Amino acid sequence: MDFGTVVHTDTASGAPLALLVCEHASKRVPASLGDMGLSAEALDSHIAWDPGALAVAQQMTAQMSASLVYGGVSRLVYDCNRPPEAAGAMPTKSEDFDIPANVAMSPEERQSRIDNIYTVFSRELSDQIKQSRSSLDLMVTIHSFTPVYHGKPRSVELGLLHGRDDRFAQAMMTTLPSDPPFVTRLNQPYSAADGVAHTLDAQALPNGLLNVMIEIRNDLIQTSDQQAAMASYLVPWITETLAGFQERKTL
Amino acid sequence: MDFGTVVHTDTASGAPLALLVCEHASKRVPASLGDMGLSAEALDSHIAWDPGALAVAQQMTAQMSASLVYGGVSRLVYDCNRPPEAAGAMPTKSEDFDIPANVAMSPEERQSRIDNIYTVFSRELSDQIKQSRSSLDLMVTIHSFTPVYHGKPRSVELGLLHGRDDRFAQAMMTTLPSDPPFVTRLNQPYSAADGVAHTLDAQALPNGLLNVMIEIRNDLIQTSDQQAAMASYLVPWITETLAGFQERKTL
Repeated sequence: MDFGTVVHTDTASGAPLALLVCEHASKRVPASLGDMGLSAEALDSHIAWDPGALAVAQQMTAQMSASLVYGGVSRLVYDCNRPPEAAGAMPTKSEDFDIPANVAMSPEERQSRIDNIYTVFSRELSDQIKQSRSSLDLMVTIHSFTPVYHGKPRSVELGLLHGRDDRFAQAMMTTLPSDPPFVTRLNQPYSAADGVAHTLDAQALPNGLLNVMIEIRNDLIQTSDQQAAMASYLVPWITETLAGFQERKTL
Repeated sequence: MDFGTVVHTDTASGAPLALLVCEHASKRVPASLGDMGLSAEALDSHIAWDPGALAVAQQMTAQMSASLVYGGVSRLVYDCNRPPEAAGAMPTKSEDFDIPANVAMSPEERQSRIDNIYTVFSRELSDQIKQSRSSLDLMVTIHSFTPVYHGKPRSVELGLLHGRDDRFAQAMMTTLPSDPPFVTRLNQPYSAADGVAHTLDAQALPNGLLNVMIEIRNDLIQTSDQQAAMASYLVPWITETLAGFQERKTL
């Protein structure tokens, strides 16, 4: 099965300190899958992708020494932040929507999506980490979440999430400005217990990279001005937090 | 020195048959280099990049099973189709223009451009070849050339160029339609003798990939309709030529 471009990589010059990852950057559904049995509205909504997340990540790479790996297909086809064995990897249901194309899926098609999307995405991440091993200290995954979920508004605006290694997320909470411009919470609106730390645990942890997942409420990053402002807020905060670790390393 | 994003990769799903390469995709000059002592006109012209080439290559990846690696900085900063020892790698002169920033360059800056642009670009190509080794048969580099060079108009419209391995270029000349829509020539408007086959010889040849460099006169790929039409012309021609080799392999 041909799914077209499944992963994009922007490789930074020199010695990147950070690898940014945006698993849910794209809402593209390959032509071979038609509309997956979904309405145009569903295919455009947050169940298909993380609106605004890619633009923020791209703005961040322009402001810091970082490479960026981002997905090229909708999370409805394969959610690259989930291992193949997870139910959410090729979800049959997302929030209020059934996903017909994922209910009526043959074992061959399931395997083809794993091989041609997840494996290709994972391998590209591993290769980028290998390429920059001498300079790389940090992985940051950038996500966005919907302001209203199952009809309930969410008050949290920025979530810092961690997987098995909580050091960077905890350190960012410590370096949080005393009067932060956004309502910021650790492990909200969900946490690793919800299975969202796969990329961090599978790729950053075994490679000794500090790591954190940043979740941004998507109504805050709708315009390119908002996206640039969010990047300009996150980059110095991340850089300062990272500098704290580097000082400790050289002691 | 930070040159920002120096290479972009669009990795195809599944088992790509071809790796497309566009070394001169971008006219971006990193902020740290200012205007390199050049006018806005020069920085926008074919001396800085290959206008239209990236769009054709991207259209091609949408029509065939191929990944794409493309440059993120102007060839004036570093020409990724030249080895570091070549004068043209960081040219001091291009057509009628002197390149002041490349004349007054310290040895450190020269080395920094090699390490942070050429090496990163080359490594990414090697990695993509490794990733797809089991399916990959062909490398195609996509370039464009100016219709008027040193005041002389060029009548050739499409050039098929080869490096040390001429098999694919020769085969494409054989499968050329009897009444081709473009004036098509082998090794024109220049050839490997002019040092333009570096990527083919350095990356495709040692990895056993068939390879060809396609040069398109840039006045033929100015609009997105022209770019899509050129891709739709090239893809079946390349695919048919490749099928000829694959038949021979299985005999």
